[in-house]
Amino acid sequence: MAQRICFQLQVDPDHIEEYVRRHEAVWPEMREALTAAGWRNYSLFMTTSGAVVGYLECEDFEEARRAMEQTEVNARWQAEMAPLFEGLAGARPDEQMAPLPEIFHLD
Amino acid sequence: MAQRICFQLQVDPDHIEEYVRRHEAVWPEMREALTAAGWRNYSLFMTTSGAVVGYLECEDFEEARRAMEQTEVNARWQAEMAPLFEGLAGARPDEQMAPLPEIFHLD
Repeated sequence: MAQRICFQLQVDPDHIEEYVRRHEAVWPEMREALTAAGWRNYSLFMTTSGAVVGYLECEDFEEARRAMEQTEVNARWQAEMAPLFEGLAGARPDEQMAPLPEIFHLD
Repeated sequence: MAQRICFQLQVDPDHIEEYVRRHEAVWPEMREALTAAGWRNYSLFMTTSGAVVGYLECEDFEEARRAMEQTEVNARWQAEMAPLFEGLAGARPDEQMAPLPEIFHLD
């Protein structure tokens, strides 16, 4: 894999349970779209205060994002998730996925 | 791999550059000890405010931690890193590696 990507998001603390519940039942077509777009070994982790950490591997994150943005299922999914987040100011949650610099790696 | 582990640490914002510099040159014996202790695909990511996200894969994180704790090189490494962190209150940095719940995964 060419890139390891880590990003952080902030779920509204009032909506933590709903966010977890929704991610226990991600639509099969959303999972298939992510795979088709090149998202591999993709995990979301969450603190008790609603901070979400995402980790994934992909060949090229900008391409993997763009491929998802072109899917209809992603637009539906992001629209349903948006009300659960803090501070989006009208943006989609996936637009907030800013990769953090990787400062260490051990295979 | 049996477990995917994510943890967060907070580096003192005054010591971010030093923390990055040190992780560009992790001692070979520290890398070897991590591998021997079962730490795989281990990355550290860092925000501009010094929040560190760790991600690794292992068979059993408690065993992987214990195995590191028994090494002399880890004691030396953690002692050198400790002054770079905030809020340790005398603890070693690696004692703060509390795994976050994983709420979603896609292979």
